[in-house]
Amino acid sequence: MKAEYINPFVESVYELFLTMLSCEVNRGDIGLTQEMGQPRDITALIGLSGPARGIVVLSFPVNTALSIVSRLLGSEVRVVDESLLDSVAELVNIVAGGAKAKLHADDPPIDLSLPTVVRGQRYSVEHPSKSSWLDVPFTSELGTFHLRVALEASAMVNEDQGVPAAARETR
Amino acid sequence: MKAEYINPFVESVYELFLTMLSCEVNRGDIGLTQEMGQPRDITALIGLSGPARGIVVLSFPVNTALSIVSRLLGSEVRVVDESLLDSVAELVNIVAGGAKAKLHADDPPIDLSLPTVVRGQRYSVEHPSKSSWLDVPFTSELGTFHLRVALEASAMVNEDQGVPAAARETR
Repeated sequence: MKAEYINPFVESVYELFLTMLSCEVNRGDIGLTQEMGQPRDITALIGLSGPARGIVVLSFPVNTALSIVSRLLGSEVRVVDESLLDSVAELVNIVAGGAKAKLHADDPPIDLSLPTVVRGQRYSVEHPSKSSWLDVPFTSELGTFHLRVALEASAMVNEDQGVPAAARETR
Repeated sequence: MKAEYINPFVESVYELFLTMLSCEVNRGDIGLTQEMGQPRDITALIGLSGPARGIVVLSFPVNTALSIVSRLLGSEVRVVDESLLDSVAELVNIVAGGAKAKLHADDPPIDLSLPTVVRGQRYSVEHPSKSSWLDVPFTSELGTFHLRVALEASAMVNEDQGVPAAARETR
């Protein structure tokens, strides 16, 4: 996967948190992962199609999701209800939409599907074994969370190029 | 949601089962559902974008998934492993791809994202509350399963038109 595919998503996360939540986030090491999802996490997914056929995922521990949505709405949210799930779905929509806008300049446009939210006691979210997730862990004062992006084989990571550097300096 | 949006998916399911699995399927009543996913089901999702921004889902009880993949591979599959999840992901890919081809004749093309598979002990798959899933239950000799299609509000079902008739006669 080329750097230009992951960086816009990382940038989008920075921007979302800074502009909508007044919260700086820090990313950890980008890694490859074949399977994803911690038990009890709230996982928001949105499909990508076009030059990059894939999926963008934001995966939040429940406490992180509650903190984020509390700040977003300006009042304390203590339960995982429909309104919280809507907000989490909107977050992945905004991140993917922001990335789409950044990618659009040089590439054919990427289209987004509807977001979906998975939650439960114990589950995993997987995708065909020919693809891999690029996993980006984030920390923030609102809690930890993960950004994960899967792209199909034709747009996969070029191992020789290594994992792209953070996009942070381009903010 | 117009009939032309759901029928191609139903047709695709019929064709997939008939051509790849030599299995006739029967559909039950089409309904609207706001939340989806039975505990323990294996749920394969694929995003749609373009004129219909949405998600297509095939949700199988574990036993149905094992029976389908056993017949597909020509040997008995008894465990849910990566190979089975790949096969289930491919099923939703084929159903969405078949529907895309049918829709293409009259409409702008629909693009597909990568498929994703969710499985676990207890989870639910939800989407923003402004949309609704159209749920189509199927029965077959390989077991029961569900087709679910979510489309965003701009392409939602027109309640006055009612639920579209089965596409079966067009096979």
